[in-house]
Amino acid sequence: MKPIRLGMVGGGSGAFIGAIHRIAARMDGRFDLVAGALSSDPTRAASSAADLGIRGYTSFAEMARLEAARDDGIEAVAIVTPNHMHAAPAVAFLNAGIHVICDKPLSATAEQARQIADAAAESPARFFLTHNYSALPMVREARALVAEGALGQVRLVHAEYLQGWLSDEVHNKQADWRTDPAQAGAGALGDIGTHAWQLAEFVTGQTPSHVSADLSSVVPGRPIDDDARVALRYASGAKGGIWASQVALGMENGLSLRVFGDRGALDWRLGDSERLIFTPKDGPAQILTRAQDRSGSFRTPPGHPEGYLEGFANLYLDIAEIIRGDTSRLDRVPGLAAGLSGMAFIAAAKASSAQDGTWTEVQP
Amino acid sequence: MKPIRLGMVGGGSGAFIGAIHRIAARMDGRFDLVAGALSSDPTRAASSAADLGIRGYTSFAEMARLEAARDDGIEAVAIVTPNHMHAAPAVAFLNAGIHVICDKPLSATAEQARQIADAAAESPARFFLTHNYSALPMVREARALVAEGALGQVRLVHAEYLQGWLSDEVHNKQADWRTDPAQAGAGALGDIGTHAWQLAEFVTGQTPSHVSADLSSVVPGRPIDDDARVALRYASGAKGGIWASQVALGMENGLSLRVFGDRGALDWRLGDSERLIFTPKDGPAQILTRAQDRSGSFRTPPGHPEGYLEGFANLYLDIAEIIRGDTSRLDRVPGLAAGLSGMAFIAAAKASSAQDGTWTEVQP
Amino acid sequence: MKPIRLGMVGGGSGAFIGAIHRIAARMDGRFDLVAGALSSDPTRAASSAADLGIRGYTSFAEMARLEAARDDGIEAVAIVTPNHMHAAPAVAFLNAGIHVICDKPLSATAEQARQIADAAAESPARFFLTHNYSALPMVREARALVAEGALGQVRLVHAEYLQGWLSDEVHNKQADWRTDPAQAGAGALGDIGTHAWQLAEFVTGQTPSHVSADLSSVVPGRPIDDDARVALRYASGAKGGIWASQVALGMENGLSLRVFGDRGALDWRLGDSERLIFTPKDGPAQILTRAQDRSGSFRTPPGHPEGYLEGFANLYLDIAEIIRGDTSRLDRVPGLAAGLSGMAFIAAAKASSAQDGTWTEVQP
Amino acid sequence: MKPIRLGMVGGGSGAFIGAIHRIAARMDGRFDLVAGALSSDPTRAASSAADLGIRGYTSFAEMARLEAARDDGIEAVAIVTPNHMHAAPAVAFLNAGIHVICDKPLSATAEQARQIADAAAESPARFFLTHNYSALPMVREARALVAEGALGQVRLVHAEYLQGWLSDEVHNKQADWRTDPAQAGAGALGDIGTHAWQLAEFVTGQTPSHVSADLSSVVPGRPIDDDARVALRYASGAKGGIWASQVALGMENGLSLRVFGDRGALDWRLGDSERLIFTPKDGPAQILTRAQDRSGSFRTPPGHPEGYLEGFANLYLDIAEIIRGDTSRLDRVPGLAAGLSGMAFIAAAKASSAQDGTWTEVQP
Repeated sequence: MKPIRLGMVGGGSGAFIGAIHRIAARMDGRFDLVAGALSSDPTRAASSAADLGIRGYTSFAEMARLEAARDDGIEAVAIVTPNHMHAAPAVAFLNAGIHVICDKPLSATAEQARQIADAAAESPARFFLTHNYSALPMVREARALVAEGALGQVRLVHAEYLQGWLSDEVHNKQADWRTDPAQAGAGALGDIGTHAWQLAEFVTGQTPSHVSADLSSVVPGRPIDDDARVALRYASGAKGGIWASQVALGMENGLSLRVFGDRGALDWRLGDSERLIFTPKDGPAQILTRAQDRSGSFRTPPGHPEGYLEGFANLYLDIAEIIRGDTSRLDRVPGLAAGLSGMAFIAAAKASSAQDGTWTEVQP
Repeated sequence: MKPIRLGMVGGGSGAFIGAIHRIAARMDGRFDLVAGALSSDPTRAASSAADLGIRGYTSFAEMARLEAARDDGIEAVAIVTPNHMHAAPAVAFLNAGIHVICDKPLSATAEQARQIADAAAESPARFFLTHNYSALPMVREARALVAEGALGQVRLVHAEYLQGWLSDEVHNKQADWRTDPAQAGAGALGDIGTHAWQLAEFVTGQTPSHVSADLSSVVPGRPIDDDARVALRYASGAKGGIWASQVALGMENGLSLRVFGDRGALDWRLGDSERLIFTPKDGPAQILTRAQDRSGSFRTPPGHPEGYLEGFANLYLDIAEIIRGDTSRLDRVPGLAAGLSGMAFIAAAKASSAQDGTWTEVQP
Repeated sequence: MKPIRLGMVGGGSGAFIGAIHRIAARMDGRFDLVAGALSSDPTRAASSAADLGIRGYTSFAEMARLEAARDDGIEAVAIVTPNHMHAAPAVAFLNAGIHVICDKPLSATAEQARQIADAAAESPARFFLTHNYSALPMVREARALVAEGALGQVRLVHAEYLQGWLSDEVHNKQADWRTDPAQAGAGALGDIGTHAWQLAEFVTGQTPSHVSADLSSVVPGRPIDDDARVALRYASGAKGGIWASQVALGMENGLSLRVFGDRGALDWRLGDSERLIFTPKDGPAQILTRAQDRSGSFRTPPGHPEGYLEGFANLYLDIAEIIRGDTSRLDRVPGLAAGLSGMAFIAAAKASSAQDGTWTEVQP
Repeated sequence: MKPIRLGMVGGGSGAFIGAIHRIAARMDGRFDLVAGALSSDPTRAASSAADLGIRGYTSFAEMARLEAARDDGIEAVAIVTPNHMHAAPAVAFLNAGIHVICDKPLSATAEQARQIADAAAESPARFFLTHNYSALPMVREARALVAEGALGQVRLVHAEYLQGWLSDEVHNKQADWRTDPAQAGAGALGDIGTHAWQLAEFVTGQTPSHVSADLSSVVPGRPIDDDARVALRYASGAKGGIWASQVALGMENGLSLRVFGDRGALDWRLGDSERLIFTPKDGPAQILTRAQDRSGSFRTPPGHPEGYLEGFANLYLDIAEIIRGDTSRLDRVPGLAAGLSGMAFIAAAKASSAQDGTWTEVQP
């Protein structure tokens, strides 16, 4: 199948989430990144595009117009800008008939959200929102278990997303727009609270009907919430809670979801993302892994952990640098010596075992 | 920097490790796969190459000769064949001046290993061996800790690699060559024991001088070892052990390493690969994460776990399929509804918090 | 030091918490149980007292009066009745000048609590409340860390106590009074929510000033709360939450406490009660164990886990039964054969090691 | 049932394992300690006996003779001396017809072991060996699973007991005799290796037929093994390994057992002793807890963790000290204030919930 021609808005040099989207788009070879309006700063937009070897634009509006007009124009666009800059490009590309892959949350304001919804309603193109956590294998399995009734009726839901990186007043590219009400719309609530919300919604298939919230700005002087506690009520009678915090000192990405029903219960934690604990009513807890996953959402056989691919990719990255001349990385890439050492190990172990365990010298 | 032109030997349709190498090579955009001798079966070699849109060869020897002659020929080749088929292509490409990226272990026999070593010695090209586990961030940090003396003198080393997938007699593409002495050379010892050996060697910087081994074929009739217990002695006086098994029922990829010195100790497990437990002599154990890693071997800021990229890639893969027409995947990719739900959550939570927690309806 | 003469109110045959109190009182040999009003049923009170070989009473009032008059009367009394039956005996014994050790929560109603408080104010005797979890070594260490400022200013507190044993309508001795508003006063809130509350209060040294609560009766028809979610606000500005549930299916005793300050954080879970995770602001998380505890709240050197004593006690119990004639337990108590097997192991291992690992027969 | 009259040999003031035996014997009220030859030092023997309020002897031989002659003499004796001092008292008490409860390992030498065996063969009294770990609930459940065939045929066994307390040259009461070959007989091998051996034997029901060992004295100058690696072969064809070390820096009591069969597998670790991981051949791993235990080896309902009793006992111990005048402990024992705080919590939570979560002041 031919790769899909992809554009990007935002994600210039130094950006975090844009780089993530590019890696993800590359991983399966199903997209070719060919164009981008990578920065609102024209110079940076141009240099970032040149670095990536793609068509560069300084305006997303122009990009939408020109790409729509090309025979080889982009078919989809990834929008990886701060929240308040989602709506305008989303509308532009939807209007141009180009599929939109937008980072979460949808927008900074309800008004912007409505603009996107209106554009999507009239466009032949599709709109996708990258809530990445719900695409993990065991989360999809969790959802399947709820859907098939393994938990019975859902009674209690608890989702957390705890980070500590904003425990102090912080100023950098990532922190600045996230703590600016104008750009972000909401703080911990929007940045990570919506992940917890969507995770709970995705797995349970239910949306709470009412909330009771306590939003705080824990760090003095911060103009936006950095801690959000939200109690949930569902139309079904189920109760729940969401706790999202950016001032939970020491926490890195403490996303978790627990669901209790009248026939079973689920416990999933991002820090141990390949295990899903399922407790049926009448039996011991079970540790489900990808061997039990039915969504097929992985690239390696059961048992090859997440990170397996990154380990390989680290080698390929180092090898590329070495081939291009950076020999400082040679010492951390296994080479012939490692191979010969392994062969010496095999030979010595076989010889020792053949002699009933006699201690045998390893001969490199 | 221009991507490196890459070829591949082995890895035709249905192959496991070849697909892994391709994803890893793609992830950072530093390689372009352009040619391959993907199968010893000419028909399969051709169709696999066509699927990938690359130059196909039915012979690695011919590929080495012709690619070396092209201006745009490959600069490096990945060899992802069974163990006994590493040496011949490795020698051919090294002789042709093309860098070799070879899967582990080095070869099936000591004779083949020597052939590779000889070719490497005379070639301007480099030879790399993809022991992927030692490229993980916390393993590299472990090595750095030992190197800087945080453990003092190493006294005890214990490495395990436990799998259960060969607990029964198994026949399939993966199992067949791995349990055939002619193709694999060694069983559990070579397939996973060498991973444990290399991991211990990489982290400690020491190679054992003597081994005492007990290799077993636990499944009746299996012609190769499926369980290997190897005691280790180091020239330094340190002692150690390696246990590699393919019949440890229920284990998926139970790779682990523990090192005890006279000033500190390390504990790392693949199933919890982002945490490295370091215990200094005079203090509590510490949980090191990528926030403490100094090798820079990751693509996301500290706290974004391994698997984060795969989650994003799962979305991009599903989105590609949907754009190309497979709407059956729509229900698991968040879209506009998820975005609007998140916005409704934010709005209701803000309103409730502004009214001191009054229960507030979520209005989609 | 002479043991303290102890009485008990409640705790007749079949009672749960009374038996626990007796074991705990016996463990260090500091109390002698000598008298009891063990049941409101005179027959059961008498037979329970006879089983224990103590002075039996059918009325706690009479017991208070008569014991206070004896030279060898009880010095302290343990009250282990349902919540609504705490106040009357507590007042009687306090009035009689006898120390009171009362199970939690204090009482079923605020009126009863006031009666106890009034009696305590006028009595020379002391009043103790057995919140046992805050007596565990790592909880005491947690408190010490907060007290000495290791967390800085406390910002966020989250305590949970999740059980699943009342997920269905249940009728038995334990469930009946706990789900009866007249006897218990409160359900999950009182039975386990107060544990979470006290744990948070004990460790942080702070009491919340305001709460916002959502109490539910999840199981249809249950006349008392079985799920309690309570948001907390502290006068210091700190925020927190308590979640107590008896319908969290599959949970056994999921008590946990997390505290985040501006200089450090704590995480403790009853299911892993001997480890306290402490994360200082500028360093990796630390795994504190009893080796770091400063309260001295344990009977075994660091490293001998909780349960160590119970293992020994299990042997002593089985040995007692065997000595008294129940030989059916012989097969699970190690005896001479186990001892000789161990000696044969030692001898064979020494001989093998002396011969450089030669395989050596184990000779029983 | 009347308590059994118990004596003790060894266990004078400052002793570790003697104190443990006394607590264990007390816990269920089935033994009364009434006599002891607590030390080979007459003065210490006398003062230790006086402290405990029991009949003191300076010679175990005399104790055996005199106690056997008394109508109210001891029925059983606990021997808690160093290894080389097990045999003589064991023989003396067995000859006197008194049951012997002996700490492990059986003795320091094979000759001593034979003496005990001979005496036991001719005595009407029983001999028990306190391998306490095999008396834990989940270990007994593990054994039951193997016995009933849940693992099928056992193939692989691996037991470890890792400690770090002898990582340096250490001199104290505990270390001195354990590192003296004359008193201990064997070092890590005897002190903790025999625990691992017995644990494996108890659970699998099989004794290895051959061993291959590598014993080391890692700390320079230590006259006894402090690290023992022992490979195991069973008559059934099963293979195994034991690793016992006292120089595994940072490890406290790292006892663990893994057993792999052809139908299932077990994993148990002392550090998480209440969970037993059982993996059946065709299903996910299961987390077994005391709710699944069938041996009844616990004093509290499923879900009340080991350590629960120690928490209660800590309170009783502190309360005893306070009653006897040590008010410095008052601050860590919950009292009336804690009780009133809990009642205020209940009242405020109920009031808030009744008003739909309105924030409500906590009124102490």
